[in-house]
Amino acid sequence: MGKRGNKMKNVIVGQSGGPTAVINSSLLGVFKTARDRGADIVYGMVHGIKGLLDGKVVDLSKQIKNDLDMDLLKRTPSSFLGSCRYKLPDIEGNEGTYEEIFKLLNELEIYAFFYIGGNDSMDTIKKLSDYGESVGSPIRFIGVPKTIDNDLAITDHTPGYGSAAKYIASTTKEIIRDGLVYDYPVVSVIEIMGRNAGWLTAAAALARSEDCEGVDLIYLPERTFDLDAFLEKVGEVCQKKGSVVIAVSEGIKIADGRYVCELSDHVDYVDAFGHKQLAGTARFLAGKVAEKYGVKTRAIELSSLQRCASHITSRIDVTEAFNAGGAAVKAAFEGMSGKVITLKRISDDPYMCVTEPADVHFIANVEKKVPDEWISEDGTYVKEQLVHYIRPLIQAEIAPLWVDGLPRHLILER
Amino acid sequence: MGKRGNKMKNVIVGQSGGPTAVINSSLLGVFKTARDRGADIVYGMVHGIKGLLDGKVVDLSKQIKNDLDMDLLKRTPSSFLGSCRYKLPDIEGNEGTYEEIFKLLNELEIYAFFYIGGNDSMDTIKKLSDYGESVGSPIRFIGVPKTIDNDLAITDHTPGYGSAAKYIASTTKEIIRDGLVYDYPVVSVIEIMGRNAGWLTAAAALARSEDCEGVDLIYLPERTFDLDAFLEKVGEVCQKKGSVVIAVSEGIKIADGRYVCELSDHVDYVDAFGHKQLAGTARFLAGKVAEKYGVKTRAIELSSLQRCASHITSRIDVTEAFNAGGAAVKAAFEGMSGKVITLKRISDDPYMCVTEPADVHFIANVEKKVPDEWISEDGTYVKEQLVHYIRPLIQAEIAPLWVDGLPRHLILER
Repeated sequence: MGKRGNKMKNVIVGQSGGPTAVINSSLLGVFKTARDRGADIVYGMVHGIKGLLDGKVVDLSKQIKNDLDMDLLKRTPSSFLGSCRYKLPDIEGNEGTYEEIFKLLNELEIYAFFYIGGNDSMDTIKKLSDYGESVGSPIRFIGVPKTIDNDLAITDHTPGYGSAAKYIASTTKEIIRDGLVYDYPVVSVIEIMGRNAGWLTAAAALARSEDCEGVDLIYLPERTFDLDAFLEKVGEVCQKKGSVVIAVSEGIKIADGRYVCELSDHVDYVDAFGHKQLAGTARFLAGKVAEKYGVKTRAIELSSLQRCASHITSRIDVTEAFNAGGAAVKAAFEGMSGKVITLKRISDDPYMCVTEPADVHFIANVEKKVPDEWISEDGTYVKEQLVHYIRPLIQAEIAPLWVDGLPRHLILER
Repeated sequence: MGKRGNKMKNVIVGQSGGPTAVINSSLLGVFKTARDRGADIVYGMVHGIKGLLDGKVVDLSKQIKNDLDMDLLKRTPSSFLGSCRYKLPDIEGNEGTYEEIFKLLNELEIYAFFYIGGNDSMDTIKKLSDYGESVGSPIRFIGVPKTIDNDLAITDHTPGYGSAAKYIASTTKEIIRDGLVYDYPVVSVIEIMGRNAGWLTAAAALARSEDCEGVDLIYLPERTFDLDAFLEKVGEVCQKKGSVVIAVSEGIKIADGRYVCELSDHVDYVDAFGHKQLAGTARFLAGKVAEKYGVKTRAIELSSLQRCASHITSRIDVTEAFNAGGAAVKAAFEGMSGKVITLKRISDDPYMCVTEPADVHFIANVEKKVPDEWISEDGTYVKEQLVHYIRPLIQAEIAPLWVDGLPRHLILER
């Protein structure tokens, strides 16, 4: 696609929300495809739309200078451009904010605006495209989904989820072997991210394979958690086998709506934003098991490595993340706006998945949970359909580029 | 080396203590070298010497059947044969135990006995070889050192340490990038294993490189920890830069000898062995920082993945672990007993390291700590000499064998 007369055809891209191990592959997909399709300058917003408002914009061709940089970017954890958790206000009554954003975009001669993020970011795309339409702006707005949580609607799954699932399943396999090392029983409780949706915790089920007995119990936030039933179940499993491994979501709640980690008589601290630290679910449950059964227990929090362990990513995920970025550019350059790129699984076996632009109004602010029929009746494991759904997403690898013994990353130069 | 007449030349090998990511490479080194040097049967003790006493012994050639099995074994986390934490009693007054062990070894026509483990395991080798000598037994006893803690005396370093250090440094790099994702400061506290020796925590210093600003503060258990000085120092660093990453050993203690994690007004639980759960140092410190400075904090425990993350190992470490196992067999077959295989660094640049048998009496029950002169004066970081010492040990990689998206392991068949 050529340039339209002498008019500059610049695009801008930002990253928002929590990072994933492949969010930079989507950034690369936008950058490379935009360049290939004739964009003049590909700008990057540093720290998302908040950075744009603060005038923090970089020329990405000065950051991603050659093929090596591109390969490093794919392997770089966290959001290369930095992120923000900034939700745009409603248009009505806040037109000033929107006028300012469009003024900045027009100054940069922006032709298309891409935003890589989760629910809040899709809300940003929705509002900007709605406002743009209302004022007759030609700028196109396209969202590129990402989240390790896999909780976005419409799309079959979300880029970022496959790599997090691969990390969780791989480390769970290692933890299971480790728990079997002694000749006395150990109950290990692994705490996995996902405040409202159990997709990540469900990935622990992938550990079960020819060479691994798998985790014994899985608790998702989709089901109400009952402490007594949990302890009874753990007791039953302990009787049958030696070491037990349990995967729990950080977001499991009891019937009265409290998070399990809130049952501890001790809250570590409330952070500067007034959020209670959610971590501690595994620790609390391990303590209860130790108290009741006198067995050795271990509490393991997979922590932020679930979203930043770029040394172990799924190549399927990397490719789909890249493709989602590229498809966003294609959609914009073909005249679309107010769209989000979704993934559509067109075949299960062999697994095949294509990108498809969808109306952003259908995806923003909707949270997709694990279907009830994919969870076992008693809520202590997941069904085979769920494993079947996840398995293709963790396939194949992309090895780190090792320099002096450690994975090499690409760093934003300011 | 041929067989001596018709006498069977069987050997036996066991694994003891906590696992490392490469403890099975040492097992392979023993197995393969013993076979190559003419051993008839290579027995494996299941769960160490305790398994031997319980009659749990396997023929390793029925477990490691081909080259693929060997390659899988190198990549298998935890101790393939299982482990134990069993310390042999003093010989004097407990001759019965020793008579029983030697009776069992003689029944199996054991020519040489290999034990892969840490301090307690070297003590086992010492006692068995002392007893064997006292009763004129021809059985040779050789120790193969392993520990992620790197706290064994005499040897330049210990197999298992390099891979743990590589895991720690790699994930620390990822956590550092992750901490920079937002435009507000985050103080991350990473808790690293090592109750008395700071070798593992020191490995966080490797993260500092061309593409990484590194951790800001490092606290080892070799120095007394002062909470007020810590908080003041964190405050200083926060003023200079946005996000801060701190590496602390789980074993740091204050002046009165209490562990930092014991300062919390809340002990999660005491396990079945009466051990208080040591984890919680990072959580406690993060809480104190949040309380004092009102910043967002994160506490990250690297947990047992430090010893079982076989998906990311150092090839140097794998090779040295294998070589230590092989050198143990060589020593035994050349007539030595009561030895432990040490690693001797014969050149720094280029790094070269050879195995050397040493008298087990010099290594057992001695704990090697980080030299004081390798820690910064104020005890908040480590010196360049320490980084220079560790760096060669994390070099090069050994990729997992991926099957259906996950690293494949070799499993003991019973």
